[in-house]
Amino acid sequence: MPELFTAVAILSGCFKKYAGTDGDPNTLSKAELKKLLQTEFEGLLSKGNDNKEVDRFFEALDQDKNGKVDFVEFSTLVITLGMALNDCPK
Amino acid sequence: MPELFTAVAILSGCFKKYAGTDGDPNTLSKAELKKLLQTEFEGLLSKGNDNKEVDRFFEALDQDKNGKVDFVEFSTLVITLGMALNDCPK
Repeated sequence: MPELFTAVAILSGCFKKYAGTDGDPNTLSKAELKKLLQTEFEGLLSKGNDNKEVDRFFEALDQDKNGKVDFVEFSTLVITLGMALNDCPK
Repeated sequence: MPELFTAVAILSGCFKKYAGTDGDPNTLSKAELKKLLQTEFEGLLSKGNDNKEVDRFFEALDQDKNGKVDFVEFSTLVITLGMALNDCPK
């Protein structure tokens, strides 16, 4: 499989792992996003104040303000964070 | 490295491979985008009319209309195409 599709398959697989936990399997609820951030981005959320931080992430990601985070919105998070942490071209 | 960063590293590596060919190494020119589409998405461009199709892709990707495609704009292409071709959640 072309390299780029490998990257998309990784993103999709990770998204499905968390989005499928409750309710709509194609979107992340706030609780699912929190679990993903805690597990996949260890250390990103400061211990004491997780929920407020999750609220901020959720609001930033939920671009169409429908109360859920879809796959493209999730991917934008990963790419933006990856750029910050992985010295990608700005 | 966490799985998600592997995906971002793949996207970033591919982007740098083409963006570094001419001019600004942090953005894709139309010529660089054409080379990327022909190589990484084989068969996406119908042979006879590549330039018009590349123009359409370029316009769709160049969200901020600055005449160049940056890494986040490029990643949006890959994710959208990947979703179409890889049965990702819509």
